Amino acid sequence: MGGFKHLVVVKFKEDVAVEEILKGMEKLVSEVDAVKCFEWGQDIESEEMLRQGFTHVFLMTFEKKEDYTAFTTHPTHVEFSATFVAAIDKFVVLDFPSVVAKSPA
Amino acid sequence: MGGFKHLVVVKFKEDVAVEEILKGMEKLVSEVDAVKCFEWGQDIESEEMLRQGFTHVFLMTFEKKEDYTAFTTHPTHVEFSATFVAAIDKFVVLDFPSVVAKSPA
Repeated sequence: MGGFKHLVVVKFKEDVAVEEILKGMEKLVSEVDAVKCFEWGQDIESEEMLRQGFTHVFLMTFEKKEDYTAFTTHPTHVEFSATFVAAIDKFVVLDFPSVVAKSPA
Repeated sequence: MGGFKHLVVVKFKEDVAVEEILKGMEKLVSEVDAVKCFEWGQDIESEEMLRQGFTHVFLMTFEKKEDYTAFTTHPTHVEFSATFVAAIDKFVVLDFPSVVAKSPA
């Protein structure tokens, strides 16, 4: 894939309806063309010592950094971000150009 | 892509030769067939408040959870892990079945 990636790792607050947040996020990425790929997951495997309380991963792919920058100021993103931030207990965000070192033949 | 993902987010210790670690990791994934895709990145964009000291992302994709489990006990992985753990200041690991909610047309 490569491209420019926006990675968000979070721990949701205990009383949050994660399904609702996910619906909002899927709506967001479907409305913004700049988001080329979006995948997410819930940790089911690693040890608590390794995941350190974090539970969910969200990964968006853009063609280039400028597309990500434009995404951050998109009205739908700005609106969703407020909902998202209110729902999380802690988070880590990394934005980076992806280096593909191995890909399916 | 989908599949089962192994995500590692780290902050390296200050005096670590990150290039050497990367070489070791590329060697590892090239030797283990179960690793279908490997990409990594160094954060260049997010604010310090967002990335919270973390600097690098490593993301491996396996066809299924059992392949990842086998990978964790592969001798080359076990050997590399010792080097890797010694080089990092802090980390978060999440292992999860990836849900692809949007992909390139």
